[in-house]
Amino acid sequence: MKTYETLSVFPEFFEPYMSSSIMGRARSRNLFSFSAYNLRDWTHDRHNTVDDAPFGGGQGMLMKPEPIFEAVEDIQTRSDTPAHVVFFSPVGAPFTQRTAERLSQEDRILFVCGRYEGMDERVYTLADEVISLGDFVLTGGELPALCVIDALVRLIPGALGDEMSARDESFSEGLLEYEQYTRPAIFRGMAVPDVLLSGDHKAVDEWRLASAIERTKRFRPDLYQAYLEGGDHGQASTSQR
Amino acid sequence: MKTYETLSVFPEFFEPYMSSSIMGRARSRNLFSFSAYNLRDWTHDRHNTVDDAPFGGGQGMLMKPEPIFEAVEDIQTRSDTPAHVVFFSPVGAPFTQRTAERLSQEDRILFVCGRYEGMDERVYTLADEVISLGDFVLTGGELPALCVIDALVRLIPGALGDEMSARDESFSEGLLEYEQYTRPAIFRGMAVPDVLLSGDHKAVDEWRLASAIERTKRFRPDLYQAYLEGGDHGQASTSQR
Repeated sequence: MKTYETLSVFPEFFEPYMSSSIMGRARSRNLFSFSAYNLRDWTHDRHNTVDDAPFGGGQGMLMKPEPIFEAVEDIQTRSDTPAHVVFFSPVGAPFTQRTAERLSQEDRILFVCGRYEGMDERVYTLADEVISLGDFVLTGGELPALCVIDALVRLIPGALGDEMSARDESFSEGLLEYEQYTRPAIFRGMAVPDVLLSGDHKAVDEWRLASAIERTKRFRPDLYQAYLEGGDHGQASTSQR
Repeated sequence: MKTYETLSVFPEFFEPYMSSSIMGRARSRNLFSFSAYNLRDWTHDRHNTVDDAPFGGGQGMLMKPEPIFEAVEDIQTRSDTPAHVVFFSPVGAPFTQRTAERLSQEDRILFVCGRYEGMDERVYTLADEVISLGDFVLTGGELPALCVIDALVRLIPGALGDEMSARDESFSEGLLEYEQYTRPAIFRGMAVPDVLLSGDHKAVDEWRLASAIERTKRFRPDLYQAYLEGGDHGQASTSQR
């Protein structure tokens, strides 16, 4: 069973998401376990202080190193399986589906969610890996951690249930998803492509591949280029699955 | 006052985040308003059905067009300010801090959070804008919506309070943030750089700029290149603020 853990000053935020929908079902089937630790549990003053002013002056507070070191070390002792420790920072490697596929091989991951913009630099010596969700500024690492955990849980065999599969999804083959339609066949004058109503499975498959290629070419020429090159080299843009 | 709204089948997920920390303080100071609408309120069957099987066959369910159209149109009537309608999809434009700065000019934004991977294609005709959080697969648009709202609220003047500012942060000047340190000056043998303890503000500023440039060069050569080019052209990589 996979184990995903978070360390933050906002542990109560995770539970609603982690106990609902696909996450909740996978968790209740024991496909993974989740724990949200409160960083303030590793402080020793009466105000449970986790931050302090920056050396050299400036606005804002930084997260202190001591509680984070103590917490990570203590959490590591709680299982025989060492946790792969992930921090979030704008200097980290951009998170992609390929990162998710690699991280999905880890049995236990601890996500340290600091203020995105203000941690004492020394805490990063605890990190096995530093990830950036993207080139934008967030308040903290909580949302990035949830995004990564969501992406990871979806890759656990069985997590999506019988009715779904990660197989066809965007990026997993290096192409964007094809256009999809459900009933009604005509809605406000917009009609579903005839081929999808034809019952001709081969024609449907061909249309879907063409749709995926057309959309990738149009919206993400970078992915399309990688897809073409992957075709030459065997697996450059292909998932590991 | 800015107005941010979400439409999803999971409205209860947003409140814990939107009522805590920086989001909660900015909201209680009426710097923005937030509403989470439940898509099922615009269904008309007893099971409140929002999805249906895909035409052409295949795994998974797709979100139906009717409830989304009805909901978006109804929500638009609830204010004299038209909402800028944002959908999330892997085919969307990648979200960056520059997108956040542009969107922060909008007075009212409605984020439609579908299953990330399965919406009837026709619903996108409702979108003023389609955003992708990154090249990874998530369960739905809820987490992307929270990330975007978080990034937007931080840009509202006053939202970060007196003690902080968006000014110095990563990406806002086209460089990554410099290394930051707080007490203790020596922690487990790791010392804070002497200059930060010197009290020499000019030297501190110089060190910080050098640190930001060094880190950007090392971790994000792409941003560094844009920073250099921005220096030539005036504003290519500089924020609008």
